Amino acid sequence: MTVYRFDVISLAPEAFSSFKELGVVGRAFSSGIAELHVHNPREFAYDNYRKVDDQPYGGGAGMVLKPEPFFAAFDSVPFSLKRRVLLMSPQGQTLSQEKLWRWSEEYKQLVLICGHYEGFDERIRTIADEEVSIGDVVLTGGELPAMTVVNGVVRLLPGTVGDPQSLIEESHSDILLEHPHYTRPAKFRGMEVPSVLRSGNHQAISKWRQDQRELRTKYRRPDLYDRWLSKKSSDT
Amino acid sequence: MTVYRFDVISLAPEAFSSFKELGVVGRAFSSGIAELHVHNPREFAYDNYRKVDDQPYGGGAGMVLKPEPFFAAFDSVPFSLKRRVLLMSPQGQTLSQEKLWRWSEEYKQLVLICGHYEGFDERIRTIADEEVSIGDVVLTGGELPAMTVVNGVVRLLPGTVGDPQSLIEESHSDILLEHPHYTRPAKFRGMEVPSVLRSGNHQAISKWRQDQRELRTKYRRPDLYDRWLSKKSSDT
Repeated sequence: MTVYRFDVISLAPEAFSSFKELGVVGRAFSSGIAELHVHNPREFAYDNYRKVDDQPYGGGAGMVLKPEPFFAAFDSVPFSLKRRVLLMSPQGQTLSQEKLWRWSEEYKQLVLICGHYEGFDERIRTIADEEVSIGDVVLTGGELPAMTVVNGVVRLLPGTVGDPQSLIEESHSDILLEHPHYTRPAKFRGMEVPSVLRSGNHQAISKWRQDQRELRTKYRRPDLYDRWLSKKSSDT
Repeated sequence: MTVYRFDVISLAPEAFSSFKELGVVGRAFSSGIAELHVHNPREFAYDNYRKVDDQPYGGGAGMVLKPEPFFAAFDSVPFSLKRRVLLMSPQGQTLSQEKLWRWSEEYKQLVLICGHYEGFDERIRTIADEEVSIGDVVLTGGELPAMTVVNGVVRLLPGTVGDPQSLIEESHSDILLEHPHYTRPAKFRGMEVPSVLRSGNHQAISKWRQDQRELRTKYRRPDLYDRWLSKKSSDT
């Protein structure tokens, strides 16, 4: 099995240090399912001050990240045939579970370029196959979005998550939100576990869970509920 | 000035260690603009094994986080009148810049409860004022979403980002995407900086940038472009 490889291009490589070691994702790296390499454009800045930004053409507040260090860092990344290059940018397409599945299945290497909120030279965009956003929010850099992508892809790789069945259950074809979960104690601070879950009646439990998923999706996410309704009518 | 306080309830407190120290956000913590406290429910689990999860009522794969350790960890968090409690959950409302602004302006304390992808006892939800999602993706836990919220809020706090003007420029009332940025060199790998930006003609530069913002938004984010058009027509 080929090891899945992540190459992150970031001016804040230390941001990835605890991330690399912790939890399910950390175990995937330590067990050799995946590798994470972080490349700092500053090490590829060849002037005396290792300068990575400069003033914007046309004027304006703030600095702009220079193209040369990013291109040089990118050129240093090993090339594989199944490689996808992502630029983390609030202008990109919103991240989705479908994308995470696609990247985990169709590629063996993801290169993630972290932008910076002050702005980067437009030519850096030409390196990327696609631009990815984690929503309409402004952050200080692309590091957290990149970690989000790595986390989301790693857990889909074979061998990472203990029970592959749970991945199949949550697969992208399954649009509804999850049903409520309960564990012991049966009564806690006046709140009781629904009696049906303690009934031992598997058919009733199954129906209750499906009803809850539909109700919850309808109430919380009418957009997903509409998608589910139209999928359901086209399936029958 | 009151210090802004973040309290994170997480089973992986180490995930926040490099995050707390780095970059713009790290400086806000070290300079006393904000504080970050992480509370581990495992330290509030009082059985012999410090058990934080248990089997689900009604059966099914996976474990469910128990309510007691989360409630006990939450009860240990100091209370302030301007406090908001967020639960990080894929079932929550999608994070937006509007929410980040609101939390930064209307509150002085955010409590962020990190879920876990295996599921948590439904009663834990009752602690939260609102549930927050960073989109339709499945992650191994709520830690990265929580860091995303903290990063996004911290940079809006007075004194964090060098130039307050840049915050005003990007404010939530400003719907269009950013225009392209360029810095030196003027020509790089065959790609040239648009000549207008080197013209010194400020009016032409200003017009070019506005045109680019509109074009880019129309092409990349038709949903935002429609919002902008309707806002524009209601303003006039």
